[in-house]
Amino acid sequence: MAVAECIFCRIVRRQAPASVVYEDADTMAFMDIRPLTPGHALVIPKVHAAHLADLPPEAGMKAFETSRKVAEALRASGLRCEGVNLHLADGEVAGQEIFHVHIHVIPRFEGDGFGLRVPPDYGGSASREELDRAAERVRRGLGTAPHG
Amino acid sequence: MAVAECIFCRIVRRQAPASVVYEDADTMAFMDIRPLTPGHALVIPKVHAAHLADLPPEAGMKAFETSRKVAEALRASGLRCEGVNLHLADGEVAGQEIFHVHIHVIPRFEGDGFGLRVPPDYGGSASREELDRAAERVRRGLGTAPHG
Repeated sequence: MAVAECIFCRIVRRQAPASVVYEDADTMAFMDIRPLTPGHALVIPKVHAAHLADLPPEAGMKAFETSRKVAEALRASGLRCEGVNLHLADGEVAGQEIFHVHIHVIPRFEGDGFGLRVPPDYGGSASREELDRAAERVRRGLGTAPHG
Repeated sequence: MAVAECIFCRIVRRQAPASVVYEDADTMAFMDIRPLTPGHALVIPKVHAAHLADLPPEAGMKAFETSRKVAEALRASGLRCEGVNLHLADGEVAGQEIFHVHIHVIPRFEGDGFGLRVPPDYGGSASREELDRAAERVRRGLGTAPHG
């Protein structure tokens, strides 16, 4: 999607409405229009990047720091917030809907109905051998991934 | 929990086993022993902090950058990875089980069975008025939160 049409880029340029909670030179935070729980916010780097792979490392780090600040703010806001999830979906299969990197900051409280849906066969520990094999593949991936 | 007993601190000191995929001066990444999907990794700051509120901002930013690297490595690993979720649970009610800040890096693929469990009443957009009211409270929270 062109930057001109990206809804988050439009929010950054104040060409689309948003309930903004924070802004600095590199990041912006505003309320998710479909809150999973009341106070659910989104943090974005201002620079347009559809995916993590396209994102300048510094921009991601700054978005994370803003997410940490917003998480602390939620705990101090008076909104119900006994815990927080930060969640990022990279890719459609991961649940990404807007193709401009964003971090969900989700206030949590007892009985809020939100959580992770785990695979049906989830539960047991993997063997050390399986884990080591997976680790070996990821380490090889690190050697070839962009940004080193 | 004392740092001496924290399982992630023990992994950092190589006093507990782990299938390590990455390490630098400030962060470490290793396989989750109960993978949600094959390749599920955890990224931690080496410094002990139970919660986001206790974490030096720089340490969190570096952990995020390592998570981004591991996400890219998973895509290049040959493990099944068509997308990635980054997920952080801050507080027991948010699903935190180990009280040393960690970011889950979860490979995703079609039909993996993993995802978000949304509240039963989830779906509609909140009104702009509701969103603005929530934003106002979070902005006030930002004024009083630690780390400014």
